[in-house]
Amino acid sequence: MFPTTSPELAADLQKRWDEIQPGIKGLDAGALMVCTPVNLLYLTGRVFNGFVWLPRKGPPQIFMRRMTPEDAAPNVHAIRNPEEIPKILLDNNLPVGKWALEGEELAWGNHVRLSRLCEASMNSQPASGSGLLRRARSIKTPYETAIMREGGLRQARAITTFSRLYKPGMTDHQFALECEHVIRRAGSLGLFRINGQSMECFMGSVLAGCNAAAVSPYDFALGGAGLDPSLPVGQNGTKLEPGMTVMVDVAYNCRGYLTDCSRTYSVGKPPEEALAAHKCCVEIQHTVAKAMQPGVVAEKLYQMALDMAAAAGYADRFMGLAQKAKFIGHGTGLYINEWPVIGARAAHEICVGNVIALEPKIVLPGIGAVGVEDTFVVTETGAENITPCAQKLMELE
Amino acid sequence: MFPTTSPELAADLQKRWDEIQPGIKGLDAGALMVCTPVNLLYLTGRVFNGFVWLPRKGPPQIFMRRMTPEDAAPNVHAIRNPEEIPKILLDNNLPVGKWALEGEELAWGNHVRLSRLCEASMNSQPASGSGLLRRARSIKTPYETAIMREGGLRQARAITTFSRLYKPGMTDHQFALECEHVIRRAGSLGLFRINGQSMECFMGSVLAGCNAAAVSPYDFALGGAGLDPSLPVGQNGTKLEPGMTVMVDVAYNCRGYLTDCSRTYSVGKPPEEALAAHKCCVEIQHTVAKAMQPGVVAEKLYQMALDMAAAAGYADRFMGLAQKAKFIGHGTGLYINEWPVIGARAAHEICVGNVIALEPKIVLPGIGAVGVEDTFVVTETGAENITPCAQKLMELE
Repeated sequence: MFPTTSPELAADLQKRWDEIQPGIKGLDAGALMVCTPVNLLYLTGRVFNGFVWLPRKGPPQIFMRRMTPEDAAPNVHAIRNPEEIPKILLDNNLPVGKWALEGEELAWGNHVRLSRLCEASMNSQPASGSGLLRRARSIKTPYETAIMREGGLRQARAITTFSRLYKPGMTDHQFALECEHVIRRAGSLGLFRINGQSMECFMGSVLAGCNAAAVSPYDFALGGAGLDPSLPVGQNGTKLEPGMTVMVDVAYNCRGYLTDCSRTYSVGKPPEEALAAHKCCVEIQHTVAKAMQPGVVAEKLYQMALDMAAAAGYADRFMGLAQKAKFIGHGTGLYINEWPVIGARAAHEICVGNVIALEPKIVLPGIGAVGVEDTFVVTETGAENITPCAQKLMELE
Repeated sequence: MFPTTSPELAADLQKRWDEIQPGIKGLDAGALMVCTPVNLLYLTGRVFNGFVWLPRKGPPQIFMRRMTPEDAAPNVHAIRNPEEIPKILLDNNLPVGKWALEGEELAWGNHVRLSRLCEASMNSQPASGSGLLRRARSIKTPYETAIMREGGLRQARAITTFSRLYKPGMTDHQFALECEHVIRRAGSLGLFRINGQSMECFMGSVLAGCNAAAVSPYDFALGGAGLDPSLPVGQNGTKLEPGMTVMVDVAYNCRGYLTDCSRTYSVGKPPEEALAAHKCCVEIQHTVAKAMQPGVVAEKLYQMALDMAAAAGYADRFMGLAQKAKFIGHGTGLYINEWPVIGARAAHEICVGNVIALEPKIVLPGIGAVGVEDTFVVTETGAENITPCAQKLMELE
C-alpha cells in the first residue's frame, strides 16, 4: 500500500480485496489488472497514473507512472509504461497468469495494449473483470458508507438553503447556478462521474415546467432538454413562472462518492394537482424504502412503485410522459450509476451495504415534475435515508 | 441531417465531412462509424444517443435510439440497438464495407459490439478512425472558430472580474469557487471534456504558493495536489498569504467548445522575482504566438520557448520544478486536449484553423506559479489571441 494510507483505510481496502479475490478465481484469471480512475480509487484509496495488479491472494502490486519518493513502498513500482509490468512481476516472484481487465469500463486503446501484454506474457486472452468490480463496488464497506453518510448530511444541509436562493424573474438556469454554487461551497468536489460513454452531466439538473417532460437521449430518471445541443440535459432556460414546479437534482461529491437528492419547489402557491402528485411520490418512496430489505428482489420494489402510482391514477405520468425511465432507483457511489438498479427486469437481491437513490417522480403536463429523491444505505435492519431534509413541496417566493 | 439544423450549420457540417471523407478511403474503409458524444457533435452538430455512419461520399446516415417526431428526416433512422444498422443500410441501397471505428476514443465494450457487427456483416476487422477524427477536429471550420471566439471573449470578460472576488483570509479553494461561479454565470456550460481516461478535472484549477510545484499524476501544464486523493488536481486548500502568487486557470465551455485562459495574481504586493518571471512568460507567449504561422513545425515553437526561458535563467523552473510538462501549448476545442500539441517531438506543422492554448509558466519555489495562458486561432496571417484581457500580474487586495 501507499505509505500515506491510514491504518483505517488500509483495513478497509483489505475488505474490498477480500470481496473481489474469490471472483478472480471464478473468472479463471490469475489477477485483476485495473487502470481507470474509479477502480484505482476503489482498490487503493487514491487516483494516480498507473495500474493496480490484484492477485487471487495477497495484497496488490502498484505500478506508477509518476512515482514520487513519498510513494515508495515494497509493493509500489515505478514504470514508464505497462510493458514493463510482466518482468517486474517475475522479478518479484509473483504468480503470472491470465489477467482480468476492466472490460466495458476501459477505453479500447488501453484494452488492446493490456490484452497484447497478457497474450504475449501469459499466452492467454484476458477475461472481463468489469462485472466483478461493479458488484464489489455496489456493496459499500463501512469506510465508504461513512464517507457517503458525511456527504449526504452535507448535501441535505445545503439543500435546506436552496429556496432562499430564488429571486423572482430568475430562469431555471440562474437558479441552478446558485444551487450548484451552494453545493460546491458545502464541500462537494463537483466532479460527476458516470459509468460508460453514453451519459454526460455537469453537476445535475434543475427542471422547471414543461422542460420536465423533454425526451432525453440519456438514461436519467428525467432528462430535461438542456441549454445547448452539445449537452442536452437539465435546465433549458425556462423562466420561472407562477404555477410551475421546479425539480432540483444536483449531486454531491464527497471524497469521490456521489450522493443524490432531489427536492421539488413551486413558483408561488403550488397547484393542488402538484401537491397531490408530490404526496404520492413521497408515499411511494417511503413504502419502497421500507420494503428495501436485504434479500428482496429489486424488480419487486420497482413493481411496487408502479402499482402505487397506477392505483393513485398516475400510471401515464409516473417517471415521465412520452418517454419513461424504466427504473425508480439506482445504486450510487464512485459513479452516479452504480449497481443495483431498481427497475424493470432487475432480478438481483438487495444486499446489506448497497447505497441506492430512490427517486419516484411524476411529470404533470403544463406544470412540471414533482417527487423526491434520497440516497439510502441498506443495513441489516433496512434502508436508512442518508440525505435527510424536509421532503415537502416548497414554495419559492 | 436533423430537421432542426440551421442552413449555416448544415453548410459547415458539409465542410467537416469533406475533410474526413478522403481519409476514410485512406484507411481502406467504406465508412466511419461514430458514437461518442464529442464525435457525434462534431459530425452532426448535436449530441444524441446513437450512431453516425459517414460513407466515403455523400451525407451521413444517423441512427437514433430515442428518436422523436421532430428528428424525422430521410437519413435519420430509429433503432433499438446497433445490430439493426447493417440491414437498414442494405435496405437503403447504401454501400456496405469495412468500418472505421473511433478506436482509442471508444469504450472497449462498444468497440467489441461494433467490431462484431463489422465482422459479421462485412467480413472484415474494423479500422481505427481515431486519428482521422482528431486531425479533422484540430482544424476548426469557420462556424467552430466563431463559437470559440464568442467563448473566448466571454471568458476574457469574466476574467477581468476575478480580482474583485478575492477577500483576505480566503483559501485557494474559496477563491476558485467564486471564479467558477463567475465563469458559469458568464454562460459556460461547465462541462470539461478531456480526451482519454487518464485525466480528470472539474472546471480548472487555482494554484497558490507551493501547490504550484506539486507533482501531478495528470499531464496538465501544472497540476496542483488537489483537495482529495480522489481528484488529485488543482487547489489544495492553501490559505492565500501575502507574497504568494495565485494562478487561476478555469476553462470556458461555449456550446461545447473549450477555451483556455490563465491569469496570475499576487496576494498583496508581488515579489520582484515574480514580476520578472511573469514578464518572461508573457514575452515567451508573444514571441511564440508571433512565430505560430501556418507551416511552422510545432516542436520549433516549443524549443523557442525553452531557449528563451533558459536564456533568462529559468531553465530549472520553466513548466514545473521536480516534474516538468513537456509542452507549452495544446490544441483545444470539443476536448481540452485536442491536437496539435506544442511540445517535445511534435513534428506536425501548424495549420490554418488550429486553435491552440499557449501557456508558458514558471514555478518559483516558495512563491508560486507565474505566467499566462491564452487561446489562439491560427489564421492565414498568423495567430490571433481570442481570450484578450490584461496579462499583467495583478494584485489581490
